[in-house]
Amino acid sequence: CGASRARDWAHHGAPIFADLTVREMKAVRAYLHGIPEMLLTDARNEALKKNSILLMELHLPKKHEVLRALDRGQAKPTRQARVVIQFGNQATPNITEYIVSPLPSPNSHEVKTFKGNRTVRFESRPITAVEYKHIVAMLDKITTTAYKLLLETTGGFSFRNCSDRCLTFSDIAPRGLAPGERRSWIMLQKFVEGYFIHPVGFEVMINHRDLDPKMWTVEKVWYNSKYFDSVEELVEKYESGDVEKVKLPDHDDDDLYSTYIPRGHSNTPTNIHGPKLVEPQGPRYHVEGNFVEYAGWSFAYRVRSSAGLQVFDLRFNGERIAYEISIQEAIAFYAGDTPAAMQTKYIDAGWAMGSSSFELAPGIDCPEIATYVDLYHYFDTDKPVRHKNALCIFEMTTAMPLRRHFNADFKGGYNFYGGLDSTVLVLRTTSTVYNYDYIWDFHFYQNGVVEVKVSATGYIHATFFTPNGLHYGTKVYDYVLGNLHTHLVHYKVDLDIAGRDNSFESMDLKFVNFTNPWSPDHRVVQSRLHWTEKKTERDAAFRFGKKFPRYVHFFNPNEKNKWGHKKGYRIQFNSHGHSVLPRGWREENGISWSRYPLAVTRHRDSEATSSSIYTQNDPWEPVVSFEDYIRNNEDIVNKDLVAWVTVGFLHVPHSEDIPNTATPGNAVGFFLRPFNFFDEDPSVASKSTIIVRQGKDCKPKVQRWTPEVIGHCVTDKPFFYNGTYKGV
Amino acid sequence: CGASRARDWAHHGAPIFADLTVREMKAVRAYLHGIPEMLLTDARNEALKKNSILLMELHLPKKHEVLRALDRGQAKPTRQARVVIQFGNQATPNITEYIVSPLPSPNSHEVKTFKGNRTVRFESRPITAVEYKHIVAMLDKITTTAYKLLLETTGGFSFRNCSDRCLTFSDIAPRGLAPGERRSWIMLQKFVEGYFIHPVGFEVMINHRDLDPKMWTVEKVWYNSKYFDSVEELVEKYESGDVEKVKLPDHDDDDLYSTYIPRGHSNTPTNIHGPKLVEPQGPRYHVEGNFVEYAGWSFAYRVRSSAGLQVFDLRFNGERIAYEISIQEAIAFYAGDTPAAMQTKYIDAGWAMGSSSFELAPGIDCPEIATYVDLYHYFDTDKPVRHKNALCIFEMTTAMPLRRHFNADFKGGYNFYGGLDSTVLVLRTTSTVYNYDYIWDFHFYQNGVVEVKVSATGYIHATFFTPNGLHYGTKVYDYVLGNLHTHLVHYKVDLDIAGRDNSFESMDLKFVNFTNPWSPDHRVVQSRLHWTEKKTERDAAFRFGKKFPRYVHFFNPNEKNKWGHKKGYRIQFNSHGHSVLPRGWREENGISWSRYPLAVTRHRDSEATSSSIYTQNDPWEPVVSFEDYIRNNEDIVNKDLVAWVTVGFLHVPHSEDIPNTATPGNAVGFFLRPFNFFDEDPSVASKSTIIVRQGKDCKPKVQRWTPEVIGHCVTDKPFFYNGTYKGV
Ligand SMILES: [Ca+2]
Ligand SMILES: [Ca+2]
Ligand SMILES: [Ca+2]
Ligand SMILES: [Ca+2]
Ligand SMILES: [Cu+2]
Ligand SMILES: [Cu+2]
Repeated sequence: CGASRARDWAHHGAPIFADLTVREMKAVRAYLHGIPEMLLTDARNEALKKNSILLMELHLPKKHEVLRALDRGQAKPTRQARVVIQFGNQATPNITEYIVSPLPSPNSHEVKTFKGNRTVRFESRPITAVEYKHIVAMLDKITTTAYKLLLETTGGFSFRNCSDRCLTFSDIAPRGLAPGERRSWIMLQKFVEGYFIHPVGFEVMINHRDLDPKMWTVEKVWYNSKYFDSVEELVEKYESGDVEKVKLPDHDDDDLYSTYIPRGHSNTPTNIHGPKLVEPQGPRYHVEGNFVEYAGWSFAYRVRSSAGLQVFDLRFNGERIAYEISIQEAIAFYAGDTPAAMQTKYIDAGWAMGSSSFELAPGIDCPEIATYVDLYHYFDTDKPVRHKNALCIFEMTTAMPLRRHFNADFKGGYNFYGGLDSTVLVLRTTSTVYNYDYIWDFHFYQNGVVEVKVSATGYIHATFFTPNGLHYGTKVYDYVLGNLHTHLVHYKVDLDIAGRDNSFESMDLKFVNFTNPWSPDHRVVQSRLHWTEKKTERDAAFRFGKKFPRYVHFFNPNEKNKWGHKKGYRIQFNSHGHSVLPRGWREENGISWSRYPLAVTRHRDSEATSSSIYTQNDPWEPVVSFEDYIRNNEDIVNKDLVAWVTVGFLHVPHSEDIPNTATPGNAVGFFLRPFNFFDEDPSVASKSTIIVRQGKDCKPKVQRWTPEVIGHCVTDKPFFYNGTYKGV
Repeated sequence: CGASRARDWAHHGAPIFADLTVREMKAVRAYLHGIPEMLLTDARNEALKKNSILLMELHLPKKHEVLRALDRGQAKPTRQARVVIQFGNQATPNITEYIVSPLPSPNSHEVKTFKGNRTVRFESRPITAVEYKHIVAMLDKITTTAYKLLLETTGGFSFRNCSDRCLTFSDIAPRGLAPGERRSWIMLQKFVEGYFIHPVGFEVMINHRDLDPKMWTVEKVWYNSKYFDSVEELVEKYESGDVEKVKLPDHDDDDLYSTYIPRGHSNTPTNIHGPKLVEPQGPRYHVEGNFVEYAGWSFAYRVRSSAGLQVFDLRFNGERIAYEISIQEAIAFYAGDTPAAMQTKYIDAGWAMGSSSFELAPGIDCPEIATYVDLYHYFDTDKPVRHKNALCIFEMTTAMPLRRHFNADFKGGYNFYGGLDSTVLVLRTTSTVYNYDYIWDFHFYQNGVVEVKVSATGYIHATFFTPNGLHYGTKVYDYVLGNLHTHLVHYKVDLDIAGRDNSFESMDLKFVNFTNPWSPDHRVVQSRLHWTEKKTERDAAFRFGKKFPRYVHFFNPNEKNKWGHKKGYRIQFNSHGHSVLPRGWREENGISWSRYPLAVTRHRDSEATSSSIYTQNDPWEPVVSFEDYIRNNEDIVNKDLVAWVTVGFLHVPHSEDIPNTATPGNAVGFFLRPFNFFDEDPSVASKSTIIVRQGKDCKPKVQRWTPEVIGHCVTDKPFFYNGTYKGV
């Protein structure tokens, strides 16, 4: 009864977390555009000197308000929108965030402030389609000036009037070296399928800070390992022979290098379909709006346009385990020899990572049997944008038992065999941030374990090959270097272990050495558990490069399981992350979360995220700085705690990253594992278990709770197990 | 042509690695039993003082002989058997290993020697069914003496005349404290389903060294945290009230605690079948005997009766990557408060880990669609024993793309979408070593990546609860402690990267700091690759607790890929292993391999394995000691190298280990990943790729190489992808 009421309240509360609907987005836009003082114009209006909505998404209510609905069935708090407006059309341009409410019929707005009343520098705003249009226009001019050089260098490619021999570009961030700057290195690439790995060796830095694009300037050009102060200078020296000409090998249209088109062969057939998942008796999970149930699990989800997938109110058998688990940020910091390479420090929330969730292909991105859900984003747009089938939910078999035991009788028979297939519910989105594709996964196991995982695929960020570049990567094509970089991903894990009041401890082993109690001439050396409760935020902030404890354990000091142990969950890392820059070094200030594989803070509604969409273009003085959250070094004993988890890996590209980085071995994440949270493994509730015992007649007797025959798609034969191992 | 010849030679050579056939085993037995001087009797003969065959398995030819067949198509070397004989029936009993040949009609045998001509102590032999029979007889006597105590303690359980209230036992190893000893702690347990987690708090140490069981003695008894020198002493003190009586809670037959029987409920149905794998157009791999082909892969396999699964002659597109990848040893070292707990240091090759490969259940241990293979073992037997369906091979989808990219045009459309499903071929066996079940996996990805993985499930090794035990584990039941322990598994990885002559290097990053070339007032700090070639075995032996390099790289210094990089493979760890005892401390000498997550040695035929079946019962002075292999500190530049890999994890049991340890989060292993071995990702050969482009009419155009419709079991609809993301 308690569990069923808990289930009802979870179901009742899930819509609190649901992303804005199309209707809500349109209403918010109409409301704001109706405020004369704001002078809002369309985002796609070609001017940069304008006021317009940049982004709109759900604004979450304060946690205690939500909990009234989730834990007591009370009324849901008012829905609100967070709206980012860029005020370019005024003397001192600024970025202001508003909370607009109530939805779906808004009538008020208030400014959303940042910690320490920091303001958002206008130059730190994400780049928009309109700004790109002006950059393209600027590149038109630049490449016209360098037309002959580019044509000769590339063997016929140009930026305009190019038909099938076009150039395109990638722009680098951060955009400068200090706050307030907005000048970007841009690399030219052949515009062919997979252009990211076709740099042609021409890099140019454009200062595009001014809101009048006519005022934009070229500050530097890089060609053949030399720097020039202008395109004209380069062209002049190129013509006069003062700079050595680069000539790429002839472009070969039949070279499949950067494409997905199959080539080569293998000994076994792949022109037939490989193994597929089926659900012989239908799905075993429920999805209703953003509320999902599977095995003992229930949760709500949403996909922030800024940073992506979030899970809320995660419960098992009605008991809360986490209030929120969400992606905060993903970065890739590079090294290299060209200015574009050494400047690249991608901080992807600033590239609209959350709204870069494109359509998932059935049978590839998710199984054919998955449930596909559309997402709606409002970023750099004048209408809500539908991303069809951008999220999927499915159950899969891991093709591995969750548990199994063969209990031999050591006489050729057995006492029993028991086993249970390990299936998981997967919640997945992707973010394609230009070249790279992240695959964001949450796996819910039947036994109370959650696996949170990010896999990397897509194209590497590659630069033009120079011999000196080999200190920073690998040659992957005639004139292409794959640059070393580190991927780091930050997650917020607001565990609420059986309630909000939690504590945190780490565990290490220490050897003890004592006289053997049954043989006093000998000594026993063995490991002993050494638990250390961490009492303050600073104590619970573990740095990369330092020894990490064997176990990290979140528990409710007020709740015990049947055997008297504090109910708790562990976080288990699967990561090869490390720091990317010395602490406090320039851009490192923007990613202070990346100092810590794990940090534990006291929950604050004001500390909702560890990063922002503004960090990419101002990592030097970020408006949201994770370090602030632990600086006050609060007490974390018996409090509402949040775990902040950083995972990642070093990626030194190699030939096998062509055409794309492949997912095997390129997934990192963490497990949430119950540790004395339950009284026993809760997957014992599964009726998919099979037990076989030897009958009196020595024949196997199968005990099961699922239909004997799976069905014609899998097998018509009932399960059979013999179990004996006899001499022959 | 070269590739096809390579394929033919691989196929031709695979039988070299095939396990002994039943016919061969029988012939070897007959041959040896026919040698009068050996005086061999049946292994199952009840005497301990006898000469008999303990184990028989394939003896591998020297590597250079095998390579003549594999690389030049020459005649295969003679098949030989390795036979372990225990000579108990003589003045000084000994263990001798013989090489018997030629098979299948043997006519000669020679003694197989160990490094340094070390001899195998008779006391270090694995325990046999006959010895257990005598232990049971001894326990009969012991429990008769303590009949009343046991009955009162357990509430009605006894060792004999017990019908449904029986006791059973688990024995602990190592069996003593020094070489030459054979005295085992034995724990009594309720003989119910899952008896491993039913200790009743009675532990007894039996000295069973003498070959005349009548001479065996009880050396110690443990009851209620007290030690006694004999059962009689305990019983006397128990009766006289000098020892406090323990009374377990009444046994409840309805308590499902240790069983697999479902209990509890979940919100979603599990009484129907979950998702299943199907092969809509049949398998895409070939198995012929012990030779397997899948995608570009080919390999041979076998399952050693001693240590288990091995893969040989692993090639991709005909080019060798590894000569051998094989399990060497698995250990679990415990800590605790009872003598059984603090003594437990299981070293599983000594428990016939390889021959403990029991039947796999379809749909649980492997998918229904798997290919199941029988194994034959000859260990502690008089006839070859058939283990039906003990190995499985299957292809599965990981429900994850191997690669995918959505190439947006940033105008609501896209240049192209491409993707390829990630499927793997899985080769799997299990080892049930009494309570624990290991699942041994090799996963072969389409892109040249191999994942080697062990998952742990089955029952924990649990001991009787005492308050002091909480320093060493968790209470998991009224009177049961789950004891902390560390699992470590050792693998031999004889990489032969494009030939035998390989070198090894590690890679770390170092920050460089230099003047920004385009802004001289600023400095650039970035990471730079720092490769270190390891020139000797000691240099390439990485210790637990020390910093491990970011990359470890095996390469062929004589072979380059298309871009001029040395062809190589990385080993990437997925492990939480650590040392279990101080270096050189007693039993640690038996597992010197466990000092090193990675050690690289020069290949020696004489260093075939890193452990032996004798280590468990004499870990103090092991006959095979891995440390010997690196002690001569050989040159490892441009040589035949072997990587020795240790993976594992600390296991502090918790309530969720009841009834069994579950596999999620309890898998460790390593990846072998190509690093400039190929010229590009070899999975581009797969015709399962799908590419979608927007046609001139803006409609999606699908390019594919597999049938448009998968079939009625999965879906009747052809693949469809739209890809646009438009305003609504
Ligand atoms: Ca704080
Ligand atoms: Ca919390
Ligand atoms: Ca050596
Ligand atoms: Ca080798
Ligand atoms: Cu990468
Ligand atoms: Cu364990």
